[in-house]
Amino acid sequence: MDANEIRPAITANRVPTPTLERLATYLKCLHDVAQAGVTTISSAALQEMAGINASQFRKDLSYFGEFGRPGVGYHVADLHDRITAILHMDVDQRMLLVGAGNLGAALAGYTGLNDERLQLVAAFDNDPARIGRKLGQLKVEHVGSIATVNADLGARIGILAVPRSAAQAVATLMIAAGVRAILNFAPIILRVPPDVMVRNVCVTQELSVLCYHLEAMPAGHRHRQGEG
Amino acid sequence: MDANEIRPAITANRVPTPTLERLATYLKCLHDVAQAGVTTISSAALQEMAGINASQFRKDLSYFGEFGRPGVGYHVADLHDRITAILHMDVDQRMLLVGAGNLGAALAGYTGLNDERLQLVAAFDNDPARIGRKLGQLKVEHVGSIATVNADLGARIGILAVPRSAAQAVATLMIAAGVRAILNFAPIILRVPPDVMVRNVCVTQELSVLCYHLEAMPAGHRHRQGEG
Repeated sequence: MDANEIRPAITANRVPTPTLERLATYLKCLHDVAQAGVTTISSAALQEMAGINASQFRKDLSYFGEFGRPGVGYHVADLHDRITAILHMDVDQRMLLVGAGNLGAALAGYTGLNDERLQLVAAFDNDPARIGRKLGQLKVEHVGSIATVNADLGARIGILAVPRSAAQAVATLMIAAGVRAILNFAPIILRVPPDVMVRNVCVTQELSVLCYHLEAMPAGHRHRQGEG
Repeated sequence: MDANEIRPAITANRVPTPTLERLATYLKCLHDVAQAGVTTISSAALQEMAGINASQFRKDLSYFGEFGRPGVGYHVADLHDRITAILHMDVDQRMLLVGAGNLGAALAGYTGLNDERLQLVAAFDNDPARIGRKLGQLKVEHVGSIATVNADLGARIGILAVPRSAAQAVATLMIAAGVRAILNFAPIILRVPPDVMVRNVCVTQELSVLCYHLEAMPAGHRHRQGEG
């Protein structure tokens, strides 16, 4: 297959991506509920406690089989473990980070990236001023060494926190080094082979959606005429 | 209305949110294509040049009326302007930022947040060590002054770049100060009144989706046709 083939994100089965996205949120909610000492909970109570939509929650879980008991509810710890397994977050996942600027530093310091299973194992940049410095627990290495470094580490997830102008070239380096899943923060559509998945985090895109909805709000909440 | 009512994101009309999300991407692609000197382009050529899905593109545009001419294609500058207007990104949008750590610094330095129309106008933190410092062009102010400061500025978009533990309290302050759209980077479901829209950027959630797809790919890489 052509390495430059353009394709939408891989969807390996019939589970909608928004459902997968929500599962990670449910994990967080279940964690909070467990911390609050709750062992069994209904979807309605979960909505009340954690702000999730109960019917959406039941529908999302239905893709993965039977959960909970009618009249009893969900066993919190059990459901947490099952969702963790569904997301394959019960296996070690090593990650590389390229880009050691402010965003890279924020990501390296983010506790969610350094739990037991999801581990940031190397950080890279191309700026001589940054190479050799510490980023969280990691020493920043030259991006040119990514293939050599990852031959040992075997990370399959790459986090791309570089400027737009460098993003495609760095993605290509990552892929050559064995990365098969990229979290991309650069505002660009990456061209990747069909076996590589990309998720984009685009701040401008998020703000565009907010702008649209601000102007589309009903008149009582609107400070300016929209064109309806 | 109950300020604690739990509700899904406002959808002010029948345009699906993924369509709105893609419009911002199309804008970037059209900008690049214009930079390359192209004035008129077909959706197929746009796919070839910018990596977008041509049929998805046509379907997304169809929500907003007639675009382009059969056999001629789209006028690039005209289409760019029309999408800009659809997203209401042709009117000034002022934004507040709360959280002046690494993430806040990355956001303040992000050029997309400081174009002509979308403007970051104030930055806040609660850490005395950060207050008074420069974050990009802005001086960091105490988060307690957000209502006073925004009484003058009138920003309706708030960017939340604080730790999870502080996020709900800061969101409540933002809303009391007049914010009606929040871009939230904290891994928490915010409880907001029905006239406030929240978009969440959750790194762990994105990584969960990548983990799921990595494990759903058989060893040796599955090559799959994009399913659209």
